[in-house]
Amino acid sequence: MKTYLECIPCFFKQALEAARLSGVSGKTQKKVLDEVALCIPGFPFTSSPPEMARIIYGVIKKTTGNGDPYLKIKEESNKLALSVYPRLKKKVEHSRDSLLTAVELAIAGNIIDYGVKNTLNVEEELKRILDKEDKVIRKENKSIFNYKSFRSALKRSNTILYLADNAGEVVFDRILIEEIKETHRDKKIIYAVKEKPVINDALREDAVSAGIGEKTTIISSGVDTPGTVLSLCSKKFLKIFKRADMVISKGQGNFEALSDCKRPVFFLFMAKCPVIAKDVKCGLGDVILLYKNKRIKKEYRSRLNGSPGE
Amino acid sequence: MKTYLECIPCFFKQALEAARLSGVSGKTQKKVLDEVALCIPGFPFTSSPPEMARIIYGVIKKTTGNGDPYLKIKEESNKLALSVYPRLKKKVEHSRDSLLTAVELAIAGNIIDYGVKNTLNVEEELKRILDKEDKVIRKENKSIFNYKSFRSALKRSNTILYLADNAGEVVFDRILIEEIKETHRDKKIIYAVKEKPVINDALREDAVSAGIGEKTTIISSGVDTPGTVLSLCSKKFLKIFKRADMVISKGQGNFEALSDCKRPVFFLFMAKCPVIAKDVKCGLGDVILLYKNKRIKKEYRSRLNGSPGE
Repeated sequence: MKTYLECIPCFFKQALEAARLSGVSGKTQKKVLDEVALCIPGFPFTSSPPEMARIIYGVIKKTTGNGDPYLKIKEESNKLALSVYPRLKKKVEHSRDSLLTAVELAIAGNIIDYGVKNTLNVEEELKRILDKEDKVIRKENKSIFNYKSFRSALKRSNTILYLADNAGEVVFDRILIEEIKETHRDKKIIYAVKEKPVINDALREDAVSAGIGEKTTIISSGVDTPGTVLSLCSKKFLKIFKRADMVISKGQGNFEALSDCKRPVFFLFMAKCPVIAKDVKCGLGDVILLYKNKRIKKEYRSRLNGSPGE
Repeated sequence: MKTYLECIPCFFKQALEAARLSGVSGKTQKKVLDEVALCIPGFPFTSSPPEMARIIYGVIKKTTGNGDPYLKIKEESNKLALSVYPRLKKKVEHSRDSLLTAVELAIAGNIIDYGVKNTLNVEEELKRILDKEDKVIRKENKSIFNYKSFRSALKRSNTILYLADNAGEVVFDRILIEEIKETHRDKKIIYAVKEKPVINDALREDAVSAGIGEKTTIISSGVDTPGTVLSLCSKKFLKIFKRADMVISKGQGNFEALSDCKRPVFFLFMAKCPVIAKDVKCGLGDVILLYKNKRIKKEYRSRLNGSPGE
């Protein structure tokens, strides 16, 4: 997804928030905004928002000297999510369609990220999700929800690459990963995190503390962008990305970075930003399971239609 | 009120909106944002937001060639507000405390401005206000509401200066002005509008089309800032501002410009911006009638305590 002009006010909002979390003075916070302002005229608007965000977070690191302003928030998010893990498990166990519930919860976990960046009370929101009877997400919020394609791709795939989004949310990913492993023991699941801190994106330590490592191989994508920008990924990661039978991509950042990539991807996220909602053609706040497969290269198409990988 | 760092993202949001309303290409819209970005490092943060906004709207005018991008919106707002005028009048007439209802409606009219700048459905919101039984505004939204001081100042004052806010809202101001004139025929009311177009601020033609002129003298403050910035006002206006027995200031922009001024002012506005809500120490969306009189100069104090001006 390209960067829209509406993203510019948001870049400043994010920069100010990160500068404040860095604990610097008002004067230095202003300096961060001044430096970001000077970057704007040179921004290539054909790039995706995560590529721009990388420049901005580079400015923040350089100006404040703090390379990981969200560290404490990430730790708190992990703790909060782990505290509801037993209830999430129970919810999946008692569900009529356990895979569907696990998928819904994995997307609902994205609310933690929204809470970090907004005034939303995450604990109350999680309580609301957990108190719901059977269905986790209301039907009207699922404008794009390609669940059938997801379920059938899962059956066919041996190697699944799962792109992590944020800290805290990783616990919700674990729920889905465990559900997949429960019914498909032979599947190989690779969980990709970011290489270096950027915003509240999940790193290896977040995945480990969430208990992801027990069932899954954790790798790094090699990037420090809030989204898996392929041109910046490591060669090792790109090989896995290319060869995986199925890619599950979590969060808006990964959607922004990969929505135009030339392989099929299942995007799971909450449309929390009006620009993304407009791009995807869905409502703000919608729970999205979007299967992008229009630009599939031949090699993938053959695999999807019943290749040896089935 | 000084400008806060949180105002910067908002300046970009406003600049983009105005650039779009100017009807220019995406390339020119980007140029507007680039030019605004270049202004940021030089911004004096001791100035009020309307002073900054003046610089920004200057950039928009220079870059797009359109000096009044909100013209059509202003005309539509006036039309919409005039269409509900008879119902507003009836509401005041049937009220137990007609002055209170007129004050509440004058503040509620500020919702038109909010609708212009956000996605709110103004017509529905106005319907909600008009459908309310007797009380227009719920009590819990009136955290700061110095109505008694307002009522008694009104009784004591001969000359009242009323600072207009936006187009459309002027019709709601007319309701309050007519109510004052109804019970205090001898009062002289002066209604001050902006000299030149800036955002959707009311100009002389808006006041005239709202029917303000029938009961009131319309003057210009001399400014093209979205708020009455005294250092930029005309000498004629400043004389009136200084000598008036009572000043009624409408809207956030006028509060931002005048909150630190050295004369008593009654500020009537809806706290639609989180920065202002924080500054005033009220909730977002609150209906505010704030009497600022802490920095009153001697000459005003004597008048308030029963001078020949009573």
